[in-house]
Amino acid sequence: MNDRVVTLHSIEEASRRLAGIVHRTPILENRHLNQLSGNRLFLKGEHLQKGGSFKYRGAENAISQLSSTQLKRGVITQSSGNHAQAVALAAARRGCPAQIVIPSNAPKPKIAAVRDYGAEITFCAPVASERVRVMQRLQTKLKATYIPPYDHPSIISGQGTIGLELIDQTHRLDVVVAPVGGGGLLSGIASAIKALSPETRVYGAEPAGADDAARSLEAGMQIPQSAPRTIADGLLTSLGDSTWPLIQRKVDGIQRVEEAEIVQSMIHVWQWTKQIIEPSAAVAIAAVLSAPFREKYQNASVAVVLSGGNVDLRALPWL
Amino acid sequence: MNDRVVTLHSIEEASRRLAGIVHRTPILENRHLNQLSGNRLFLKGEHLQKGGSFKYRGAENAISQLSSTQLKRGVITQSSGNHAQAVALAAARRGCPAQIVIPSNAPKPKIAAVRDYGAEITFCAPVASERVRVMQRLQTKLKATYIPPYDHPSIISGQGTIGLELIDQTHRLDVVVAPVGGGGLLSGIASAIKALSPETRVYGAEPAGADDAARSLEAGMQIPQSAPRTIADGLLTSLGDSTWPLIQRKVDGIQRVEEAEIVQSMIHVWQWTKQIIEPSAAVAIAAVLSAPFREKYQNASVAVVLSGGNVDLRALPWL
Repeated sequence: MNDRVVTLHSIEEASRRLAGIVHRTPILENRHLNQLSGNRLFLKGEHLQKGGSFKYRGAENAISQLSSTQLKRGVITQSSGNHAQAVALAAARRGCPAQIVIPSNAPKPKIAAVRDYGAEITFCAPVASERVRVMQRLQTKLKATYIPPYDHPSIISGQGTIGLELIDQTHRLDVVVAPVGGGGLLSGIASAIKALSPETRVYGAEPAGADDAARSLEAGMQIPQSAPRTIADGLLTSLGDSTWPLIQRKVDGIQRVEEAEIVQSMIHVWQWTKQIIEPSAAVAIAAVLSAPFREKYQNASVAVVLSGGNVDLRALPWL
Repeated sequence: MNDRVVTLHSIEEASRRLAGIVHRTPILENRHLNQLSGNRLFLKGEHLQKGGSFKYRGAENAISQLSSTQLKRGVITQSSGNHAQAVALAAARRGCPAQIVIPSNAPKPKIAAVRDYGAEITFCAPVASERVRVMQRLQTKLKATYIPPYDHPSIISGQGTIGLELIDQTHRLDVVVAPVGGGGLLSGIASAIKALSPETRVYGAEPAGADDAARSLEAGMQIPQSAPRTIADGLLTSLGDSTWPLIQRKVDGIQRVEEAEIVQSMIHVWQWTKQIIEPSAAVAIAAVLSAPFREKYQNASVAVVLSGGNVDLRALPWL
């Protein structure tokens, strides 16, 4: 976790660290989705990544830079979602203890997955202040290294390796669309794409009910998320101090989508591609199927990042 | 549809006809499923086949052998399931009219998919005798060619191409497991595998509540299905006059599985591989996770055919 800034170089270094460890996920194509969008969609299958989401890239890039002393003391983070699984998995690979602070109301399958990857779980009351308080107390006690979910150059550079792969795996890209929550994924990919293919447009996809990135870009200043309401549980957070400036400089726009569009897009993907993607990933599909996007782009080559596939199969949003 | 018998030659001919048309589906591997089984599982992803199941292979092999006169008159079949979609799709590719007789109570998503592929649908009362009566009347009127769902050498040889691909895509196989309903898939694969790799064991996987293949093999004579009860809606039919002798000669055994095992296996595959498979495909997974199979095989190379992925997302068996 020595990266100070995100550059093409830091992303390429991440790529070298991750080679042979992180899955180079496939590009999927689907005739039905192409027809619905009017574009040729290259679906980047990060739901097939280890841990079921792109988060493993950043976690692995961060943890692979720790010293042996740091690895011995262990790592710590707080998350009830994909970052928790990613940190657990990356730590386990190095034999490094992992402490995950999880709110006591987190879905049981997610808790089970983190435990399955060998991490130790500490439960806390389900309020943000408690999560931080419990984590900081533990971190001080254990001298563990904090692995942030998105707001750090090492995390962003790790997620940016998806951009390198997209350039490698496709002939030419007119557009790249990725969901935006804290912005680690979007800022990392935008940094890679704009360095290697400046003419490619990069858009974020965001639920209308959690649109701090769209509002921040429109206002030209960082506006925090307030009272987010969306089924896309990976996109509830605010942009961070590392991700916001990158997004402001490198992202061409944010497409907002409504909840009904997210659900319908998730059904389309499940039904036609037989791939399980989570609501946050469906947000990116909803963006390329939205009327504004289709009015702007037709017959274009569009990469869409299927960011993750961790869903509670007992609580599907269309039921 | 000129094949009289199923041989390695007829399967290789099917493979040549299907080249570039049918997807050569990937082999998927998953650490969690391997651990649960104690074997190395090669999951053959026929849920990613065109039309969402292996049925497209047989339908394409049959329809590609029709004369131009036959193609002009069209094809006909009766099915509410994967065979209907497969015939619709294969016919559409040749610009050949397709008539599908579907029981009036069939799930709406399946009807929509058949219609989406451009076939004409005729509804009938939801009893087997009506299906056959309506279809025969239509067939006579239209002079259309009947494309049977499984009990014909051309269909069986088409499905057998999966066996050729399995031999190509793996280094060495100790066991191949495929679900068995009418037996087209199992008999086709067994014919290919036993010709090319006689030491490989081939097993059918069957719901205990629809176990005519298991009972037939045990009795040494063809016993029809009676009052089948299973969520595996693709496995309700009896073996046919073409499939039964092949299964009797070439298949090493049938593994029965309980309904709870099918549901649990389906959840395992959805959760860990992020692939949507239907209950009939989960039957094959349940077989390799069953205690009898695990007692017999450990650390073996086992191919498992994920036969299809067409499910009603609003009616999942664990809800």
